[in-house]
Amino acid sequence: MSKIFEKLIPFLEKEMAFHTALNLFEWDSETLALEEAMESTAKVIEVLSEEYFHTLINPDVEKLLKKLEDEKENRLLTEIEQAIVRQLRRLYDQLQLIPPKEYKAYQALIAKSTNIWAKARENKSFQEFLPTLKEIIEYKKKFAKYRSKSNKNLYDILLEDYEPGFKTEQLDCFFEQLKEELVPFIKEIVKKADKIDKVYNTLEYEKEVQRGFCRWISGYVGFNFNRGVIAESQHPFTTNLHNHDVRMTNHFEEHNLEAAIFSAIHESGHAIYEMNITDELTQTLVGGGVSMGMHESQSRFFENIIGKSKAFWKPIYQKLIDNYPKQLRQVSLEQFIQGINKPVPGAIRIDADELTYPLHILIRYEIEKLIFEEKIKIEDLPDIWNKKYKQYLGVEPEDDAEGILQDVHWAGGDFGYFPSYAIGSAIAAQIYYHMKKIMPFEQYLEEGNITAIREYLRDHIHKYGMTKNTNELLKQMMNEEFNPKYYIKYLKEKYTNLVN
Amino acid sequence: MSKIFEKLIPFLEKEMAFHTALNLFEWDSETLALEEAMESTAKVIEVLSEEYFHTLINPDVEKLLKKLEDEKENRLLTEIEQAIVRQLRRLYDQLQLIPPKEYKAYQALIAKSTNIWAKARENKSFQEFLPTLKEIIEYKKKFAKYRSKSNKNLYDILLEDYEPGFKTEQLDCFFEQLKEELVPFIKEIVKKADKIDKVYNTLEYEKEVQRGFCRWISGYVGFNFNRGVIAESQHPFTTNLHNHDVRMTNHFEEHNLEAAIFSAIHESGHAIYEMNITDELTQTLVGGGVSMGMHESQSRFFENIIGKSKAFWKPIYQKLIDNYPKQLRQVSLEQFIQGINKPVPGAIRIDADELTYPLHILIRYEIEKLIFEEKIKIEDLPDIWNKKYKQYLGVEPEDDAEGILQDVHWAGGDFGYFPSYAIGSAIAAQIYYHMKKIMPFEQYLEEGNITAIREYLRDHIHKYGMTKNTNELLKQMMNEEFNPKYYIKYLKEKYTNLVN
Repeated sequence: MSKIFEKLIPFLEKEMAFHTALNLFEWDSETLALEEAMESTAKVIEVLSEEYFHTLINPDVEKLLKKLEDEKENRLLTEIEQAIVRQLRRLYDQLQLIPPKEYKAYQALIAKSTNIWAKARENKSFQEFLPTLKEIIEYKKKFAKYRSKSNKNLYDILLEDYEPGFKTEQLDCFFEQLKEELVPFIKEIVKKADKIDKVYNTLEYEKEVQRGFCRWISGYVGFNFNRGVIAESQHPFTTNLHNHDVRMTNHFEEHNLEAAIFSAIHESGHAIYEMNITDELTQTLVGGGVSMGMHESQSRFFENIIGKSKAFWKPIYQKLIDNYPKQLRQVSLEQFIQGINKPVPGAIRIDADELTYPLHILIRYEIEKLIFEEKIKIEDLPDIWNKKYKQYLGVEPEDDAEGILQDVHWAGGDFGYFPSYAIGSAIAAQIYYHMKKIMPFEQYLEEGNITAIREYLRDHIHKYGMTKNTNELLKQMMNEEFNPKYYIKYLKEKYTNLVN
Repeated sequence: MSKIFEKLIPFLEKEMAFHTALNLFEWDSETLALEEAMESTAKVIEVLSEEYFHTLINPDVEKLLKKLEDEKENRLLTEIEQAIVRQLRRLYDQLQLIPPKEYKAYQALIAKSTNIWAKARENKSFQEFLPTLKEIIEYKKKFAKYRSKSNKNLYDILLEDYEPGFKTEQLDCFFEQLKEELVPFIKEIVKKADKIDKVYNTLEYEKEVQRGFCRWISGYVGFNFNRGVIAESQHPFTTNLHNHDVRMTNHFEEHNLEAAIFSAIHESGHAIYEMNITDELTQTLVGGGVSMGMHESQSRFFENIIGKSKAFWKPIYQKLIDNYPKQLRQVSLEQFIQGINKPVPGAIRIDADELTYPLHILIRYEIEKLIFEEKIKIEDLPDIWNKKYKQYLGVEPEDDAEGILQDVHWAGGDFGYFPSYAIGSAIAAQIYYHMKKIMPFEQYLEEGNITAIREYLRDHIHKYGMTKNTNELLKQMMNEEFNPKYYIKYLKEKYTNLVN
């Protein structure tokens, strides 16, 4: 082993420990801890976050990193070690150029901002959130400028944090296609789909039965209960301590059958990704999923491409009926498949169906770009938001809570995150067409043989963790980098079929 | 504020954060995490433990500590700061004289030893655990010798970790009294109590109903659900992140009504102590209960002195019957009180009743002393154990699992811990006689007014955290230091009454 790399190991071990502890605190806060505990617990998290930061960003590590990047030394490293060095450089580029004092002030702002946002949303008042949002945006701009080496597009720098390798140029083209192709297509499909009856979905479904069925379906798609825990929280999410301890949550509502089922499958997709990362990578800097987009591609592949297909439900729909005989006896498999796919344009992103979903992302992408190109006033955001919703989706948010304030992302400083959702959907579609070519995909689903599909994903994506980037993985798997055409093709084929 | 103390603060904050994170990992491991996760999670815990150690034990802190102990500087400190300095000195005395390498090797041993013990217990084989136990004892002796400044009694040094201020000399006298007075007394009482019928206790009690009742009774005695969480684990325990996040567990068995009820009350006693420590102390080095014995005094005060009294059950026994009408309708309050207090000598400490319990501790105390006075061979422990059980309790353990292997403490290196249980019971009795003098104690219980009692404990014990030691608190409260005579008096009075 490289002597230099050896010197890095104690730092990496600490990073791993603090990182894992922070994940556990996040899990605990969302699933168990009480509101009254938060203020004191925040102090713990603050100290751990600072320790995390200083463990990585310090002169000793910087020196080691530079030495390890030297070509001669770099050749002595294993592939995994090289990936760790690359990832460390990425973190350095993200953090080191920001003055620690400003970073700390920003962290303090972010620690409060989610609460301010939540209250503003409760009061349906963008005005209440405006000063905080402005402050966050100022910090994000400032930080992006620190990091910008050659007057780079600021938004590109933000994208780099979530989707390394993807630039505004490419995404402009992607979203432009989405807009051109999907806006008119959706209008047409939505009209035709209006006749689909999904009254069944809002009948009464006992939570305890939902819990049982969702747990079962998570196992059916491949959630490994020896390595994973399922709990409940306000919003479903997935996190992990390492590949042998992956945790996801769900949320149950009595008058919504689908929400929890597709959350279960979606989060299982995230969880399966993390469970399948190899033992030699987990607990290293490259032991997570490679990007937000790739992660979303897996959750959406499971949720939408597998989970909303007829082939998937064919062998298991009877089981669902057995859980809810009164509610579903009269609902045929065909009707159910139409129901779970029915497109209905709405104001809320997280309630959106698969077809209208990308337009929600398109709107956010366009707005985030406007913000960082400094082409708009933050005060005008609600207006801009509402106009775009009217234009693309034909809906008008009733108030700020249903509009500009609906997502937590900006309150957490996560600008540049939203595109990953659409990238994920597009990657999922691209993988789907590839897999259909090389294996009897529908047949596997009809046979209940999810294993074959899941293991293919494991062997071509999951197991690599962050040792290869998104495009490298795609290229290696199907000899083609990211290509959004499949996504549009997929949506058009699927929905044309659905309503005809 | 003292400039020197100010310099100490960053270290104290880190200690707090690592300490809290370790508590959360412990909680998570016992209540939620899967077996398969443990190996990788252990790495996280190892790193955090080392960070914890090095945060406190390092030349910078040592220098500051010495300066702060200087009389002139010390006078500049607030009372809380002075207590923090004293506690830091205690931790230094515990840890700093041990060579870090040996400490790490010991920690690694302890990380594995509980599993080895658990397997040996499963296989009922002391031989399997013997080599590990010997190693642990060697380390404990070596460490105690490092810490021994003037050829002090080694066992005194171990006691110091759990019960600061209590010495072998005093405990010898305490346990000698217990032996002399209780061994013959118990033989007499047990015979008379044989007629007490508690068949009701092992009828079928649905776990879900037990959960509900135990939750209710925790609230009844004062567990604050805005500051506390209750979960389940193999063995009930209490831990906390700080005074606004206290967590306890319970364990339910279908054919045991009492076990979970008295666990709930016992753990509530621990939890209430932690919840009542003031905001200015929590998250500092002196923000916990003052000693193991004082903590046990509170849990046992709630469990035994309050929880097993007729006055306590008088207003709430009907509620219990309402929960289990079929099982309890025929059981009068008198019969129930006799049942929950029935003394039955047995081989297992944690199943013991209030009366025979101290003899279990007596046996462990005598054996621990023999070990650290190097008067016996470790190989002979099972024999010695069994003989003492025969002699004091009249029972013969069937095998090593029921005998020498029953407790986890020694596997975790916790020698010197057991006496705290008996000290706790004795303190509880002492407080009881004091409180009876100054308030209408029985009347409060009969009125369901636990608040008056609980708030007295809060104002005279809990709120002080570790700013005053055990004897200082007792002296301040009732003008008398620890005195075991009340404990013997209490047991004699209570059990003479019970069987006559």
